[in-house]
Amino acid sequence: MRQPFVKMHGLGNDFVVLDHLDAPREISEREAVQWADRRFGVGCDQLVQLLPGPDGCHATMVIFNPDGSRAEMCGNAMRCVAKYLREHRGVSDMELRIDTLAGVIAPRFLDNGMIAVDMGPPIFAGRAIPTTSDEEVLDHVISTTNGQHVISAVSMGNPHAVLFTPDADTFPILTVGPSIEHHELFPNRTNVEAVQVFNRDHIRMRVWERGAGLTPACGTGACAAAVAAMRLGYVERSVNVTLDGGDLHIAWRESDGHVIMTGPAEESFRGEMDIDDL
Amino acid sequence: MRQPFVKMHGLGNDFVVLDHLDAPREISEREAVQWADRRFGVGCDQLVQLLPGPDGCHATMVIFNPDGSRAEMCGNAMRCVAKYLREHRGVSDMELRIDTLAGVIAPRFLDNGMIAVDMGPPIFAGRAIPTTSDEEVLDHVISTTNGQHVISAVSMGNPHAVLFTPDADTFPILTVGPSIEHHELFPNRTNVEAVQVFNRDHIRMRVWERGAGLTPACGTGACAAAVAAMRLGYVERSVNVTLDGGDLHIAWRESDGHVIMTGPAEESFRGEMDIDDL
Repeated sequence: MRQPFVKMHGLGNDFVVLDHLDAPREISEREAVQWADRRFGVGCDQLVQLLPGPDGCHATMVIFNPDGSRAEMCGNAMRCVAKYLREHRGVSDMELRIDTLAGVIAPRFLDNGMIAVDMGPPIFAGRAIPTTSDEEVLDHVISTTNGQHVISAVSMGNPHAVLFTPDADTFPILTVGPSIEHHELFPNRTNVEAVQVFNRDHIRMRVWERGAGLTPACGTGACAAAVAAMRLGYVERSVNVTLDGGDLHIAWRESDGHVIMTGPAEESFRGEMDIDDL
Repeated sequence: MRQPFVKMHGLGNDFVVLDHLDAPREISEREAVQWADRRFGVGCDQLVQLLPGPDGCHATMVIFNPDGSRAEMCGNAMRCVAKYLREHRGVSDMELRIDTLAGVIAPRFLDNGMIAVDMGPPIFAGRAIPTTSDEEVLDHVISTTNGQHVISAVSMGNPHAVLFTPDADTFPILTVGPSIEHHELFPNRTNVEAVQVFNRDHIRMRVWERGAGLTPACGTGACAAAVAAMRLGYVERSVNVTLDGGDLHIAWRESDGHVIMTGPAEESFRGEMDIDDL
């Protein structure tokens, strides 16, 4: 079978999108691994399958990691799915409803072409992140194999350790990142963000992703960095975050405490892959 | 402009092939960088452009590295080009003539679907590889920051340091590779092959590529490993080489001293990328 696909990315966080809205089928773990392989398949951070959604939803979004396992949600992928449905399926609504393993998400198109995604509320409670602390972990000194660091812990559905530095670009994240990722404070390990505050509306962030290393863009990481900076009083409740892959806008909404992430989605190319033998 | 392409690989060494046989055009350094980018473009080890060849040649093959610079020749890419011309352009000759910066190469189709490429003669002369030695470098002990190692140096148009080990899979190539790559014996640095001799017809090789690190398949590396093993009397003049990406067959022809590399070429997928803004 020759399977059409669209390759998309949000700030370099890249996805293969398979449209099975009209002809739903199962994707095996083995097939997902093949799609994600950057040398033998198409290559991507995650494979995104679109299936018919439940009543009131435009689609169900199934996300596969490169090892074939499933992921609950990904903000960068959600923006790509919204753009895909508009450009390839003629969906004209300004707000979509997409079913995911993390519930129904409603990405919204802005007039400037950007797409806003409600990422839900941040979690600061120590045990819930999870950390080994019963208290919130804010401006907390930890000792690692690469020196002492002051971190703040926050969950956006996954754990983050945010660390403020005067210069994010020269911060030795390749060595400090893994030593914090594996610190005993974080029983499920953690993502690590090195954050520089430019001013009250603009921060710079580099991210060490748990299990993945240095990446150009991590949506939940940008949210975690922004709300940590907001919580500590360094910035306003609406900031631009400059990642290696580009800019995201993060707002922490007063009304319901949810974090709204806004950014671009781009199509890289489209094609067809033969999957007869999968 | 929407540019069609075909993505191919030889043992995981992967290429984007652009067919400009009918409508030749220049590819800028910036465009080549975009094609090769694995997150923002299609992604490949090298971009291959096909242009009309001089009289008697099926095509001219232009190879771009991911930084936009040009490469002379690549055996894995040559097999892919041969397969492309047969399957997409209806070329039925069993032997093709492809013009490259390294001269005209004549890939040949075998009955089993494999493609044989004449890689030219190996060079053992020390200065020509280049090494700092006036003599051949065979079974030569060098001291590195990661211990002493016995290496043999050979050039297949690019320098290689071949090192024999009882177990290529557990050999610490990630640390020893770079320390040999940068050893003072090799003024232009070197590729490094860790080679295990299974028997007189079969060797196993893992390769640390100069400037690229651990890769699944290096055609000139397989040639260098094989001829070093032949020169030292460990194997016959015709061997299978098992790389991480699969098997190549290497023969060192008695008649003219040329090395013939035989292996597969595969199409991964085809597609179109918009390059209006390049």
